[in-house]
Amino acid sequence: MVQGEFSLIEKYFSNPAQCRNSKHTVLGIGDDAAVISIPEGKQLVVTMDTLIADRHFPAVSYPADIAYKSLAVNVSDLAAMAATPAFFLLSLTLPEADEVFLNGFSKGLFSAADEFAISLVGGDTCKGPLSISIQASGFVAADRFVRRSGANIGDKIVVSGRLGAAALGLASMQKKVKLSVNQQHDCLSALNRPRPRLDLIDLLQKYASSAIDLSDGLVGDLGHILKQSSVGAVIDREKIPAYEGLYEHNMFDLCLTGGDDYQILFTVADKNLDFLLNSAQQAKLDLYVIGEIVEQGYFMNDHNQSIDLAKFRGFDHFAS
Amino acid sequence: MVQGEFSLIEKYFSNPAQCRNSKHTVLGIGDDAAVISIPEGKQLVVTMDTLIADRHFPAVSYPADIAYKSLAVNVSDLAAMAATPAFFLLSLTLPEADEVFLNGFSKGLFSAADEFAISLVGGDTCKGPLSISIQASGFVAADRFVRRSGANIGDKIVVSGRLGAAALGLASMQKKVKLSVNQQHDCLSALNRPRPRLDLIDLLQKYASSAIDLSDGLVGDLGHILKQSSVGAVIDREKIPAYEGLYEHNMFDLCLTGGDDYQILFTVADKNLDFLLNSAQQAKLDLYVIGEIVEQGYFMNDHNQSIDLAKFRGFDHFAS
Repeated sequence: MVQGEFSLIEKYFSNPAQCRNSKHTVLGIGDDAAVISIPEGKQLVVTMDTLIADRHFPAVSYPADIAYKSLAVNVSDLAAMAATPAFFLLSLTLPEADEVFLNGFSKGLFSAADEFAISLVGGDTCKGPLSISIQASGFVAADRFVRRSGANIGDKIVVSGRLGAAALGLASMQKKVKLSVNQQHDCLSALNRPRPRLDLIDLLQKYASSAIDLSDGLVGDLGHILKQSSVGAVIDREKIPAYEGLYEHNMFDLCLTGGDDYQILFTVADKNLDFLLNSAQQAKLDLYVIGEIVEQGYFMNDHNQSIDLAKFRGFDHFAS
Repeated sequence: MVQGEFSLIEKYFSNPAQCRNSKHTVLGIGDDAAVISIPEGKQLVVTMDTLIADRHFPAVSYPADIAYKSLAVNVSDLAAMAATPAFFLLSLTLPEADEVFLNGFSKGLFSAADEFAISLVGGDTCKGPLSISIQASGFVAADRFVRRSGANIGDKIVVSGRLGAAALGLASMQKKVKLSVNQQHDCLSALNRPRPRLDLIDLLQKYASSAIDLSDGLVGDLGHILKQSSVGAVIDREKIPAYEGLYEHNMFDLCLTGGDDYQILFTVADKNLDFLLNSAQQAKLDLYVIGEIVEQGYFMNDHNQSIDLAKFRGFDHFAS
């Protein structure tokens, strides 16, 4: 029997535990809209991303992974702004009211929601080709958010973790490369369960002059910072924290353009670099300084070569 | 030439006039997320709806109408909560980067946004089957929102305008009925350009004990109020403000289950009814009292008959 929309929403997404968990939710799921109380002195940070089967995730992924990733990529945008996750809305489009899918999906969703401390407050379900839209909101102390446009000449460019594992996982699923068991585990986990870097929020607020989350690939995403800050950059190939497996499979470029990394790329004034690195060390966070903001141009030093990154392309959903 | 995602977003959706118009937008389109400043003493009201081609609108509709309707149905949810629209995010999924579509779509979107005084602050574009997800947010003075669950025994049931024209328009597009030129104009305009009842916000805050917007059809939507308020209702068929054309084409039931009306259905305590109707008359708003909240049961009086509405069905996206 095909379930009706309203009973589906109730059965899988009206998780009372979730609603109770949020001290900000005045009215949760089940009305025309939800009502949220905003803490005094906070600004609201809002983002929305849609994930489409076989475009943003393999359609054969586990439903729990699809849900997890859909929420994680949105929360990653909040992390990049130095905002703390608060609540989200979900619009789920499904070809049919498939209970097995919904059961797995809702488990993955609430497990991610618990992990990121964010509450589902509303949304929509529709019939159609599988896609997931999530709108996530977070709070930040007034004017303490970090934008893309604040990079200054002389700032150091920092990456929060290893890059390219997710893209290598995708290449493996597409049979373009054969990975060892351990690599397969690392890479599929990076692809299906990206971890938004919420542990960096304090450091970003204190030290970052600009930030972006790495969803489209290092080259494209750093390009956004440069464009919006009206500056250039030089990075060092050797300093880029590539996932080890990339070298072995001769696929280094995946850490430049592969995307789906969900690390934070940010800039920090040279005078603050030591404070940042010390704080990071105390908090047991690995950070990688990969280059510097310059007046203009966009280059990568590779031994004696200088590669023009303006000619590289990030992942683009409408690129041919 | 296929345009890239980023240039598409910039070209059609980074409308600086729109961004400037919002006094609440601290940071608008173009970063990982937007930043909003929430006025003191206000709560945030959030809703999200997805519209899918040939399910929520005919795929042959004008792109401007698709955009207008997508925003209107979300704003209608805010109106039903008695919240004033503030900002929205758009996720647009398109089969291809079609400039003709995007041009029309963005014009319809910004024209609706101007009309409803709501600002686009962010979103996403993807490649895939045509669908539009919008997350809209509004503000309401603390605890002055109206929910579905507040109907009390003895309350009168009120509808804010004529019902069934949009459903008749859809029936006409589906060649199920042949309309006169005037009817065609009324009905397609109701179908493609629904007007959220923002003019009712003050009255709802003052007088409504519960409210819902009529998206799925009167019977289903009143059913939500009854279920969430744990009460019953009796309505009078003769008092339902059906669009005139429905009688002529013997399609009265469209105003019960057709959906897409986007009027507000609300309840008001009997003692407040005269105040409500007087205020409405002064504001030149037509309201229709169609029945009363009772302890239990859900019936429609039709001359000497009593029809059990619990057996009627509203529109359900997953119904077979």
